[in-house]
Amino acid sequence: MIEAIQITDPDSIVSALKAVVGEDHVLTRPEDVEGYLTDWTGQYRAPALAVARPASTAEVAELIKLCNACNIAVVPQGGRTGLCGGGVPVAGRETLVVSLTRMNAVRSLDVDGRTVIAEAGVVLETLHDAALKHDLVFPLMFGAKGSCTIGGNLSTNAGGSNVVRYGNTRELCLGIEAVLPDGSVINALTGLRKDNTGYDLKDLLIGAEGTLGIITAAVFKLFPAPKARSTAFLSVAGLDSALKVLNRLQDHTGGGVEAFEYMPQPAVDVICKVFPAIRRPLEGKVATGILVEVASSRPHDAAEMQDGTIRLATEVTELLGELMEEGLVLDAMVAQSEQQRADLWKMREAILEAITENGPAHHLDLSLPLARIARFVGEMDAEMDRLGFQPLTVGHLGDGNLHYALSAAKGRDWDALPLETAKEKVFALLTELGGSFSAEHGIGQSKLAVMTKLKEPAQLDVMRSIKRALDPGNIINPGKLLPPG
Amino acid sequence: MIEAIQITDPDSIVSALKAVVGEDHVLTRPEDVEGYLTDWTGQYRAPALAVARPASTAEVAELIKLCNACNIAVVPQGGRTGLCGGGVPVAGRETLVVSLTRMNAVRSLDVDGRTVIAEAGVVLETLHDAALKHDLVFPLMFGAKGSCTIGGNLSTNAGGSNVVRYGNTRELCLGIEAVLPDGSVINALTGLRKDNTGYDLKDLLIGAEGTLGIITAAVFKLFPAPKARSTAFLSVAGLDSALKVLNRLQDHTGGGVEAFEYMPQPAVDVICKVFPAIRRPLEGKVATGILVEVASSRPHDAAEMQDGTIRLATEVTELLGELMEEGLVLDAMVAQSEQQRADLWKMREAILEAITENGPAHHLDLSLPLARIARFVGEMDAEMDRLGFQPLTVGHLGDGNLHYALSAAKGRDWDALPLETAKEKVFALLTELGGSFSAEHGIGQSKLAVMTKLKEPAQLDVMRSIKRALDPGNIINPGKLLPPG
Repeated sequence: MIEAIQITDPDSIVSALKAVVGEDHVLTRPEDVEGYLTDWTGQYRAPALAVARPASTAEVAELIKLCNACNIAVVPQGGRTGLCGGGVPVAGRETLVVSLTRMNAVRSLDVDGRTVIAEAGVVLETLHDAALKHDLVFPLMFGAKGSCTIGGNLSTNAGGSNVVRYGNTRELCLGIEAVLPDGSVINALTGLRKDNTGYDLKDLLIGAEGTLGIITAAVFKLFPAPKARSTAFLSVAGLDSALKVLNRLQDHTGGGVEAFEYMPQPAVDVICKVFPAIRRPLEGKVATGILVEVASSRPHDAAEMQDGTIRLATEVTELLGELMEEGLVLDAMVAQSEQQRADLWKMREAILEAITENGPAHHLDLSLPLARIARFVGEMDAEMDRLGFQPLTVGHLGDGNLHYALSAAKGRDWDALPLETAKEKVFALLTELGGSFSAEHGIGQSKLAVMTKLKEPAQLDVMRSIKRALDPGNIINPGKLLPPG
Repeated sequence: MIEAIQITDPDSIVSALKAVVGEDHVLTRPEDVEGYLTDWTGQYRAPALAVARPASTAEVAELIKLCNACNIAVVPQGGRTGLCGGGVPVAGRETLVVSLTRMNAVRSLDVDGRTVIAEAGVVLETLHDAALKHDLVFPLMFGAKGSCTIGGNLSTNAGGSNVVRYGNTRELCLGIEAVLPDGSVINALTGLRKDNTGYDLKDLLIGAEGTLGIITAAVFKLFPAPKARSTAFLSVAGLDSALKVLNRLQDHTGGGVEAFEYMPQPAVDVICKVFPAIRRPLEGKVATGILVEVASSRPHDAAEMQDGTIRLATEVTELLGELMEEGLVLDAMVAQSEQQRADLWKMREAILEAITENGPAHHLDLSLPLARIARFVGEMDAEMDRLGFQPLTVGHLGDGNLHYALSAAKGRDWDALPLETAKEKVFALLTELGGSFSAEHGIGQSKLAVMTKLKEPAQLDVMRSIKRALDPGNIINPGKLLPPG
């Protein structure tokens, strides 16, 4: 019925919104709305007509129908931890922010089938805790876990540090429930491991940054909790050696590598400068530092050996010895306690804050074929040095994902540095090597220009055709992901 | 330029086709074309104007442009091992079969990056061999491996017996190259583990059965070859117990279960009847038979223990002992040699031929949430028995996938049995339990009716919108996958 109504007066629209989600869940006062207008960066901000906080999928559907009828843009929003302006209003369109945070139920957890159904507003860490109660893990893991929500994780196909073993959010998701741009609902919360009944709408919506509909719930895979872990900080001979080390570790542990994080000297330096309490894991210069974590759910791997060590750690230490003899690993610190492990991860997770504290920087979220990372970093670090930049890189090296942050080299004035030239150099080599300019943070508003420049025109055309077909009124999250055609 | 030409006379069309792929690679004589008009079932057959055998992606693109200009339907075709009529012409449309079998190059294999680029016409077993040369595996595995091609595997998102560990074809594929319905080419052979630059066109084309474009090449993940294996045939206490046994095996081996195949008594009986040379793995009645295979790439797992056994086998045998004490496993035969292992797999792979030889049967390719399989099989087997059917079921139980084949019970006349009623019963319970009517064989032409009946209308609508947006002329593989709207 709502579709037929043409409401143009803002007050009538707000009344209609309140009729859908209830008086208390439509925010319109500037002080209430303010926090919903930007994301973690604070860089993207535009006004909104109102914020609606639906409690159910049916309410989301009604809101979308209403916005269609009134030509109001809808911005789906979760924990506002985005780095690309994907979940905030854009200027020039009357906008309703739809905050999914009230849809925060873990609907069900199937212990034997090892699946869980969670609503879009569930905080990632809440899902971790729900799984762990049953000795299972939901392995999606990154710094924002305490505030980001499942809906945002899905919409950006979030990655993080455990992708090398468990895949991105996409690979962890077995099915979704979503509201499409016309307000219709698709129910595909099946939890099936095999299901081929037509086009893969789940994967079309995952990573679409809310531009093809609003995911309201999802079924995820769960995995047995590790019984044994081994965490170490390695100094390896170079990035070429790092790939060899990764493969050897994978083979030696039967694919047990849960994280393989690149932490070169400049990144460790800036962390230790900003957070003096954080200790360097290894003495001296560590050009190619790697934080590695191996885990196993095999009870035998957690068994104590004759010398008191556990089997997994023994086997990893033994391999590290071999790799040192071969000259691939130069030095290694293996965590001897849960505290030492926590310290290593604390260091890793401090990097974004450290770079931010350190001074102005431009963040690039790149990925490359594993075998070409060494060449990229070698050539590009030298090039950036010539231009006056100091790259502060960390990366999920096991996935070929580099967070390549450009800061000013010592004594250089940021504002005088040729940032555009630097970006052009980065993207030119990246393209030559078959890399991607957007690995895991999303496009949002921040990468529309590079999307226009680097994405294959034929692919942009298909994407635009799909967007037009599903959202002819350009109602759902306009101005994000897809550059104007 | 071709787009502008309107060719309507068949001879001119054939000349134009020959200009694209060469004189020798356009087949028009009935005896040459005949083999391309049907698939493995022989059940679906319609005439074609010609068969074109392009040698490159550019030739595929030119063929599609030509067919668009002349309103000729295009049927992409691989090894013709399909079971659903997805790769053959349909009546009522002038049709060109585009056989991809000449595009059969393994373009490159990145040993350190563990990826391979293969063209659509590469036979699956060829890819197995290419990987194994480097001590790596491409783990997609099923009976048709010697003739099916990569393009068909991708277009049906093929599964098979190793999905429980490695996923479906979709999860194995990192990127594709494809020709879209308008003849444009997308180049996304990136091999990246993380890449979020817009809508997931790769997964949209995978499983689309050639109705949204023709995949011409793909990048796949490779995995380290197992160093140790343990294969066994188990008699378990029931399907509920089977899921517990699977989870225990997974935890005990750190996710090392490569296959977990349901082989109940009736299936084993029919195999042994049709192929008397095949021996039963266990004496006596085995209501719930499971063929299980565990593997590990860890050199330590292949190490010989003091008693001469290898570590992996020792640990699996030890667990089986525990499971027998707990009453979950009733009996077990662990393969003691490569020959015994081969015999077990020969038995498993003989099932389709055995059912076909045995007499008329109706094949259903179902999947269910793991935790609901026991209820489905329990209720449905009893129901089928009441209706006069004997289900000859095998299944990839680790994925919840049942190949539920209905044959006539002993002494019953197939033609007098209520097949439609039986199917209705199956689909009713399947729907109630959240299962899928199409797990891994595809929709093709064979499941259009059930697709109309059971697929959610909102999902069918989106699928049709996408099809119309990408292929307004309905040129690419019409009459497959999508029921007329």
